[in-house]
Parts: sequence; C-alpha cells; structure tokens
Amino acid sequence: MHSFQDLIALFEKQFSQWHFPGTPASLYEPAGYILGIGGKRIRPVLTLMGNELFDELHPDAFQVGNAVELFHNFTLIHDDIMDKAPLRRGMPTVHTKYNDSTALLAGDVMLIYVYQFLNKVQPRYQQRLTAVFNKAAIEVCEGQQLDMDFEKMDPGQVQYADYVHMIGLKTSVLLAASLQLGAIIGGGSEGNQAHLYEFGKNVGIAFQIQDDYLDAFGDPEKFGKQVGGDILVNKKTFLLLKALEFCNPAQREELRRLLDYTGDDKVGRTLQVFRDCKVDAWAEKEKERYTQLAFDHLEAIAVVSGRKHPLTEVADFLLHRQH
Amino acid sequence: MHSFQDLIALFEKQFSQWHFPGTPASLYEPAGYILGIGGKRIRPVLTLMGNELFDELHPDAFQVGNAVELFHNFTLIHDDIMDKAPLRRGMPTVHTKYNDSTALLAGDVMLIYVYQFLNKVQPRYQQRLTAVFNKAAIEVCEGQQLDMDFEKMDPGQVQYADYVHMIGLKTSVLLAASLQLGAIIGGGSEGNQAHLYEFGKNVGIAFQIQDDYLDAFGDPEKFGKQVGGDILVNKKTFLLLKALEFCNPAQREELRRLLDYTGDDKVGRTLQVFRDCKVDAWAEKEKERYTQLAFDHLEAIAVVSGRKHPLTEVADFLLHRQH
Repeated sequence: MHSFQDLIALFEKQFSQWHFPGTPASLYEPAGYILGIGGKRIRPVLTLMGNELFDELHPDAFQVGNAVELFHNFTLIHDDIMDKAPLRRGMPTVHTKYNDSTALLAGDVMLIYVYQFLNKVQPRYQQRLTAVFNKAAIEVCEGQQLDMDFEKMDPGQVQYADYVHMIGLKTSVLLAASLQLGAIIGGGSEGNQAHLYEFGKNVGIAFQIQDDYLDAFGDPEKFGKQVGGDILVNKKTFLLLKALEFCNPAQREELRRLLDYTGDDKVGRTLQVFRDCKVDAWAEKEKERYTQLAFDHLEAIAVVSGRKHPLTEVADFLLHRQH
Repeated sequence: MHSFQDLIALFEKQFSQWHFPGTPASLYEPAGYILGIGGKRIRPVLTLMGNELFDELHPDAFQVGNAVELFHNFTLIHDDIMDKAPLRRGMPTVHTKYNDSTALLAGDVMLIYVYQFLNKVQPRYQQRLTAVFNKAAIEVCEGQQLDMDFEKMDPGQVQYADYVHMIGLKTSVLLAASLQLGAIIGGGSEGNQAHLYEFGKNVGIAFQIQDDYLDAFGDPEKFGKQVGGDILVNKKTFLLLKALEFCNPAQREELRRLLDYTGDDKVGRTLQVFRDCKVDAWAEKEKERYTQLAFDHLEAIAVVSGRKHPLTEVADFLLHRQH
C-alpha cells in the first residue's frame, strides 16, 4: 500500500521517462510541451489507487495511467483551442505557443498514443478496460459539446439538472473511470467497481461546486487566481444558475442587468445578489451533499477500511477537507 | 469470393445501418454529416479484400472496415479545418457548415468510435490489429504535419525523396494497413501480409503521382475538376519538385518567376516549362514504376492467382488502367 504522495512520485518517475518520438519534431515537440508544464497527475494516480484498493500494484496500472494522463492532456490542448485560451498552468497554451493546426494535430496524435498504451495491457481484461475507457472518453466529448451549447444559451434557459449532467460528463466521468480502470486491473468485483466509480464521480461534482464557490467567494491569497473571474465573463456556474432559481423578481432583474453590465463593481454587486439569495450557503451544503454521497459509496466498497485510506487522502486534498 | 463492386455494396449496406447516438445532436449530427456526403469506401473494401484473399469473409472485417472508414473521415474533418477548405466532395466541409470547434470535437469523438469498433473483434488478434492500425494512424498524423511543414518551405528546399516519404505517410499507409488488417483477420502469414501491405502502399503512391499528373495534364471533361488547380496555388507536387530538379538554369528562373506570378497565363506557361523539362513523360514512367512494384508484391503473395482478382480490379480502378 502506498500513500497519495508516494503514488504521485511513483507515477511521475515512470511517466517522465516516457517520451514521444523525436521526429517530426514539429509534431511531437508541441505534444511533449504540454506534458512538461506540470499538472498534478491526479487521474493516473487514481488508477494506481483503484488497483491497490484490491491487490498489489500491477505494471498495467502504469500503462493505463499513462493512457489516462495523455487523454486528459489531449482534452486540454483541444479545449484550449476551442476556448481560445491564452494560458494553461500559467504558461502559453499549445496553440498560442505554436499555432492552431499544430495544436489540433498534436492533440490527435496524442489520442492515438492513448490507445497505444491501452494496447499493452494483458489480453484477459483489455476489452473491458477499453470499453470503460471509451465510454468515459465519449462522455467527455459530449460534455464539452454541451458546455459549448450552454455557452450560447441565456443563463435562464439552462436547467440546473442539465448543468450538473454536463459538468459530470465534462469533468467527473474521467476521474470516476480512472478509478474503475484500476479496480479492473486489481480484480475488484463489478459491484465494488460501481461504488468506486460513483465515489469518483461525486467527488468530481463536489470539486466543481467548490471551484465555482472559490472563484466567487474564495480568499484571493489562497485561491491563486483572480476572484470573480467567472462573474466577469458571465460564465454559467452552479452559483449563477441556482441564484436565478432562488431569487425574487427584483433580484432576478438586478442579475440580468449585471450580465450586460461591465462597470468596475460588477463582481461586488453580483456577489451581493448571490449572498442575498443565500446561494453561498446553498453551495457549501451542496458540496457537502455530494461529498457525503461520495463517502457513502467509498464506505460501501467491500474491502477493509485501511485500504481506503489513500482514497480518503485524495478526496481530502481535492475538497480541501480538514480533519 | 466477391468482386470489387459486390464488396462496395456489401460494406455500404452494413455501414449505412450504423449511426452515431442521437444526442447531443449538436455533436453527432456534424459527425454523421460527413459520412452521409459519400466517398467511395475504398479503405474498408480493402479490408474486406485482405480478409477474402485468405479466407471466407469474417464479421470482424466489417467492424475493422467501419473503424478504418471512420478514421479516414476523422482525418478529412480535421485536415479541412487545418487547410481552411470550404468544400469536400462538392459539399460544405464540416467546419464551414457548422463551426471550427464543433468540427474539431466531432472529429475527436469519431476517433474514439474508431476504437469502439476495434474493441469488438476477437481477442485472439485484437492486439495485433490495434498495433497495425495505430502505426498507420500515427504515420498519417506525421504525414499531415510534414505536409504542413513543406507548405511553409520554398519548393527548392523540399527534397523529392522527402516528398515521396510524406505522401506515403499521408495517403498510402492507411490503404496499405487497411489491406493488412483484413489479411490478419483472414489468417494470412506475416510474409503475405507484408507483400499485401507493400502492394497497397505502392498503389497509393502511383495514385498520388497520377493525381498530380491529371491536375496538370488531365482532360478537364474527364478529370471533373479545374485543371491546373495545383499550379494556381503553387502546391508542391511531384511535377513541380521534379521539374525543379530536371530543368536548366533558364527554366528554373522561369519557374521561380511563375511561382510569384498571378497572370491568366500562369497555368499555361508553367505547363510549358513542365513539358520542356519532360516532367510529363517522367510522371507517366514513375507512376508505371510504382504500379509495377505494387503488382510485383501482389504476384509474390502465396495464394492462387484467382483470389487476387478483386485486388487487380481495385488497382485498375484507382490507377485508370485499361486492359
């Protein structure tokens, strides 16, 4: 058994030794660039944890971890093109540093390398692993498309349930599948795999609610990015959608005005409406609700509780829980 | 045994019954759109032929054919974004009909569905099939990158051998691999697989030389597109690169001037230099050389020659050979 920190170090050591081919450098250097600008390698570590929950670490968990990490980076490259994002992890995005076509193609080849790694595992569970992985990969694409569709809609048109569904696809299913893939390698039963998947999915949703909450109400010192960034760009967040549901007609009018408003006090005035609608307290409760759901599923996995410790660690890390 | 035409009909019947999911329509409608605007389904038919060269048609050949056809369409969607191409098969390209982000994501999800199909085949050859497919898929991406790199270079800087290498990756390896994948399903030996692969690769290069030749010297009535289109956009073709190699200093000077020239007689004057350098005769011979190479490899495959008839048919169709 390894701790969360041990597993990060183990994975990173192995992953940093793998490289794309040297040529054509114009294709593989951009692909390697994004892998080199960091990231916490959470997803592959979840695969290692899923494996170790049931059995000794198997080398296949590292192959699948590599696949999952490459897939995540592939989505980052392509999402950044679609979002026209200039920065990622404080560094120029791939399409900014190179160009759109190169970034597109570097992402494409990275996705094929995902399947190179998935093709290295033992045949006895290869089809099952690939099926679980593909389901999640397709859902991530569907989530990204729904996100783009929602972007074009008026905030009042987006139903809260649809938004939760979209966020689940876009950000949580890959966390959930990363765990399940490890569980398959470790020989976990289907029932235990399902609980582990739900643990990951609910942690992911709780994490996203927290992310939206911190963007609005976080301590700028601790949060590490501009507070109110989502409000400035009228991003549809858990807070905005729920505020539109909770508020009275006057507050709704004020929120709608603020969406078209670009004055210096846009953030402050929006936060005031959020507080007046008590959407801040709601978000804290909602995050707690999903966290509880996650831990209920973790609890239900039929292994001795000591084996679950690293999963508790990673959830605490992601959800800033203090014990 | 089936003829080329029979196999097209068999594949098309099966493929047209498969559909992407209905939702999100904003993602899957663009993906389905490109499949609906035609294409000759050459690659999946090659897979069926590769199978039938050695054994009865197996359902797995259709699954792999679906994978190969989806992969081809994925490359078309993404290449059209990179090339900013407005039309494909006489219809608006996906990114023109929808938008760049949707086309990018529709291509991505299509690539994942490629691997859904590859995940349905019998485990006994799944890893081998996936390895052969992945090698080709990676090479197609590398070829596209090299093509973009060459685009930015002066024609005189591009070596003929490098150009042949690029064209081989970009257009021929998928034809070659499509055949080999079928041969694996049909139980062909590794030696026979290698000959079949080389047959497909050399047919592909001969086809590309012919394509460049017809663009310059073809009969506009029969060719179905504007003659001289490559010359108008200064495209690096077999003809241009070889002309720069064959020509004398005065002809070279004229070719260089013509690259910067946009007058009405650009095509006519360029064709005159091509003829003066005898690059037209060279291209006919070079196409014949690659065709001969292809048929030598076909000949070397150790099965009775009657089984090779459909492969001769498809090569004759692609290379406009009259017997």
